[in-house]
Amino acid sequence: MPYIPLKENWPGITGLLDYRKDTALPIRELTQILLRGESTLSEGERELIAAVVSHGNECGFCTAAHTAVADLLLGDNTIAENAKHAPDEVLISDKMKALLTIARAVQKNGKLVTPAMVEGAKSCGATDMELHDTVLIAALFSLYNRYVDGLASVTPEDTAFYSRLANILKDKGYLPSENRYATL
Amino acid sequence: MPYIPLKENWPGITGLLDYRKDTALPIRELTQILLRGESTLSEGERELIAAVVSHGNECGFCTAAHTAVADLLLGDNTIAENAKHAPDEVLISDKMKALLTIARAVQKNGKLVTPAMVEGAKSCGATDMELHDTVLIAALFSLYNRYVDGLASVTPEDTAFYSRLANILKDKGYLPSENRYATL
Repeated sequence: MPYIPLKENWPGITGLLDYRKDTALPIRELTQILLRGESTLSEGERELIAAVVSHGNECGFCTAAHTAVADLLLGDNTIAENAKHAPDEVLISDKMKALLTIARAVQKNGKLVTPAMVEGAKSCGATDMELHDTVLIAALFSLYNRYVDGLASVTPEDTAFYSRLANILKDKGYLPSENRYATL
Repeated sequence: MPYIPLKENWPGITGLLDYRKDTALPIRELTQILLRGESTLSEGERELIAAVVSHGNECGFCTAAHTAVADLLLGDNTIAENAKHAPDEVLISDKMKALLTIARAVQKNGKLVTPAMVEGAKSCGATDMELHDTVLIAALFSLYNRYVDGLASVTPEDTAFYSRLANILKDKGYLPSENRYATL
């Protein structure tokens, strides 16, 4: 049971973003810019960073939600699953592997990002902006994971829930929208 | 040296917020609402949460900056220092002690917040909104700390720098402002 009174049937982050809408708006805007705004990383690649960081933080809700969105956007159900559990065997570019290594370090502590990790990513073609965004996405999901778990919001067990949520996040993005969760 | 090209003499978070202004704006807005908006926690108490979380994440820049702001706002140079190092000896209310216990748990992982911690805070008079804001402030500084250290921005060693920064954050808050760092 959540530690504060959240609306029933608004699990995970959804009830929290509804509980305090003034703080929710900039969180939503930041997420929309980082995960759906213009970028040389695909939306699927950016959702993959979110899924891997949430997995590292053991946040069940965010991991399931962003794995489901990454699966949809990448058109492949194995990439995120492998990236979470077997980093070396993932069918992604060397650049994305190097960026995920940096994201995993940031998830633990920013100081764990080493010059060698950054050089590794740059030698695979990562740009300064891609490095910046990888670190900030990993930092943002370190916020989300703590927000969701720190207030003990509900984590649905039904995998179909995350599939429905993923379709909403894919089609509508992260900004507030009318009847946002009508199909949830 | 930072991993991406940040302006010289814009250390810590300042150069990062300048590097990508579109992502900086919602981060600044969220911080302004949480640390300077209407609240039953004083601005000094909220800065204390920021300082303690940044200390837990070993982020030198954020720890020094928010300790300096907390000192200014609380009118006492010993409170934040003690809260970081000797939690039991801090001259703050039992409610703030209980909220800092929750913030320290969130800093490590949201799942470490226990029902007993929440009950402890409620029994000292903490409201649902204070619980919410404590968790979200701790989560937000877990973002900041990772952003600052993950990109290896510069951490000034001169303590007078943080004193000047603290006065800016006290007087101008967190939103963008003209000639913001003129006195830095």
